[in-house]
Amino acid sequence: MDYFEKSLILHKKYHGKLCTKEKVSLENSEDLSTYYSPWVAAPCLEIQKDEKKAYDYTRKWNNIAIISDWSAVLWLWNIWWLAGLPVMEGKAILFKKFWNIDAIPIVLSTQDPDEVIHIIEGIAPSFWWINLEDISAPNCFYIEKKLKEKLNIPVFHDDQHGTAIVVLAWIINALKLKWEELSNQKIIISWAWAAAIAIWHLLRKAWAKNIIFSDSKWLLSTSRKDLNPYKQEVLKYNTNNVSWTIHDGLKDSDIFIWVSKWNILNSDDIKTMNKDPIIFALANPIPEITPEEAKKWWAYIIATWRSDYPNQVNNVLAFPWIFRGALDWEIKQITDEHKLAAAYALANSVKEPEIEKILPTAFEKEVVENIATAVKNIA
Amino acid sequence: MDYFEKSLILHKKYHGKLCTKEKVSLENSEDLSTYYSPWVAAPCLEIQKDEKKAYDYTRKWNNIAIISDWSAVLWLWNIWWLAGLPVMEGKAILFKKFWNIDAIPIVLSTQDPDEVIHIIEGIAPSFWWINLEDISAPNCFYIEKKLKEKLNIPVFHDDQHGTAIVVLAWIINALKLKWEELSNQKIIISWAWAAAIAIWHLLRKAWAKNIIFSDSKWLLSTSRKDLNPYKQEVLKYNTNNVSWTIHDGLKDSDIFIWVSKWNILNSDDIKTMNKDPIIFALANPIPEITPEEAKKWWAYIIATWRSDYPNQVNNVLAFPWIFRGALDWEIKQITDEHKLAAAYALANSVKEPEIEKILPTAFEKEVVENIATAVKNIA
Repeated sequence: MDYFEKSLILHKKYHGKLCTKEKVSLENSEDLSTYYSPWVAAPCLEIQKDEKKAYDYTRKWNNIAIISDWSAVLWLWNIWWLAGLPVMEGKAILFKKFWNIDAIPIVLSTQDPDEVIHIIEGIAPSFWWINLEDISAPNCFYIEKKLKEKLNIPVFHDDQHGTAIVVLAWIINALKLKWEELSNQKIIISWAWAAAIAIWHLLRKAWAKNIIFSDSKWLLSTSRKDLNPYKQEVLKYNTNNVSWTIHDGLKDSDIFIWVSKWNILNSDDIKTMNKDPIIFALANPIPEITPEEAKKWWAYIIATWRSDYPNQVNNVLAFPWIFRGALDWEIKQITDEHKLAAAYALANSVKEPEIEKILPTAFEKEVVENIATAVKNIA
Repeated sequence: MDYFEKSLILHKKYHGKLCTKEKVSLENSEDLSTYYSPWVAAPCLEIQKDEKKAYDYTRKWNNIAIISDWSAVLWLWNIWWLAGLPVMEGKAILFKKFWNIDAIPIVLSTQDPDEVIHIIEGIAPSFWWINLEDISAPNCFYIEKKLKEKLNIPVFHDDQHGTAIVVLAWIINALKLKWEELSNQKIIISWAWAAAIAIWHLLRKAWAKNIIFSDSKWLLSTSRKDLNPYKQEVLKYNTNNVSWTIHDGLKDSDIFIWVSKWNILNSDDIKTMNKDPIIFALANPIPEITPEEAKKWWAYIIATWRSDYPNQVNNVLAFPWIFRGALDWEIKQITDEHKLAAAYALANSVKEPEIEKILPTAFEKEVVENIATAVKNIA
């Protein structure tokens, strides 16, 4: 039985991965009167007097919404509505199992960005945090920005920022092995879109200086006239200003972050990079190049999204701890400083990184819970 | 310590009454790969091919939303947003505890009825059922009607229909004690609004013929020119066509259903009713007249919302069983036939009604679960 088939069988067996559970005892009519009509009126009246009391008397303090328009689900992209729900439920059970956070998956019936914003505003009071999920670029940038302006609760697009935090943590530790500084590295990021742009942004904040971008086959450059505003923004800080292919861009580079799969690269390209290059082959589920193939040449360390290779890049290492820290310390929005602190805390949680163990696994809870403390300390 | 204070202390102690819980085991990276990336893609792709598979592979089959605009919370009325959340959570834990239904309380940030409809449409795909809660009339009529037209999942305003079902069941059994027929009873309903109109509608469907309405002090009648369209609709079937006060309307009546509290009635009014009258004093938490006072005169059977008197009228007896039956049997909308079947099943679950025990309590599960079967049998 392959993994695919096993997943289907188990999803059907459990009939959904998430349920609700009552936290109080309901054994007699006195319990009913206390927690429901009539005496539930007591906390209602207290909250009416002071809205903040909702954090004492209701679940709001620990309740986040995972909201998606299903436009960018895994590598399946725009699979619409319900088809993305299994991913949301998967994320919600991670939140619960590892970090005791109550996450509610919500599927939207629209992909219009202004409608998405409007609907999320409409349901926001129930939640302490809005986690945007599987929303494609450029809508994800616009939706996150507008919601942060409109809502008085944190808004976070984990596909962007969670990925960026884990990639930065990974690079920090990989560079320890190479005795190199981030500011000296030539970095190429292929695919100038949601997660890629967030990675670029955070690397810059961590003092990376030499970063170039490709979209499909071509590098971004000032000579190109076909770039949308987001790619133009990237270009302001891009060190490349000639029109080259991605193959050209790879030459003499040190770190290659490969967020998509186009089947245009192979191990021949790796050997044009500087010695001991660091490779992120992050296409999911099949990376553009396998670790086996990359290592035939001189790839030094390679990371994938895959759990069956060493060095899985997994957002699970970061996002729930950031949320736990932010929830416990009532942080209003996650800033770049929080993200940097989270990345360094994640990296430093491994005392001595090894080539096949750059970061801890999600199951090493005592290690990764440093992140919550790091986020708290910024606050 | 009074009930009010006890409720506050317990609500604060448990810090919310509801949480989420994972249904699958997450112990190693293989579990992560199965239930989250990458192999969660398997159920996603199956649902993309056939939307109905969402009922197999996700929680949707058992997931309902309890949605409110907080305009009619208990007797507190328009207490806005978060202040109503404790009531929703109370309802959600009842759904879970007694009927294993996952209910998600959602607070809206608007009270505009078209906005409410729009936002609910936006989040509907995640749920198998929308339960409208604590929405005031006339918006509740409009919102429920429009959503039933727009959505392909059931929509139900329990404050109306759940109350009507329990009141009808109660009357059925009370009349067994009096050896009377519903069609011969003169019934007066005070307060021509949400629950009252739903009660009237269901009583008519159960062949009650002589029903008059009051709004505040006056009976509804064709001579009045100040009636909104909903009250005008009621009037089509109202047997009263002169302008009298509620005191006049009570004379020679058999059943008095008193949904609000205006402090205008007393036990003197009861003695103007026919012998052995049936009284519903449903204002919450303080009924217009107490059972003690009503019985000084010739009130035969009296019901309240209060759990500290016999004969508590409690929606908990009906709505969750209707939901359980409808969920298990994939009923598309709850019709009048389902409501009548539920009311008769609830009434018939008590073999021999007694004056102080007209209906079972919610804790007599083996009794009230007949309702789910009754709903199923209509389907």
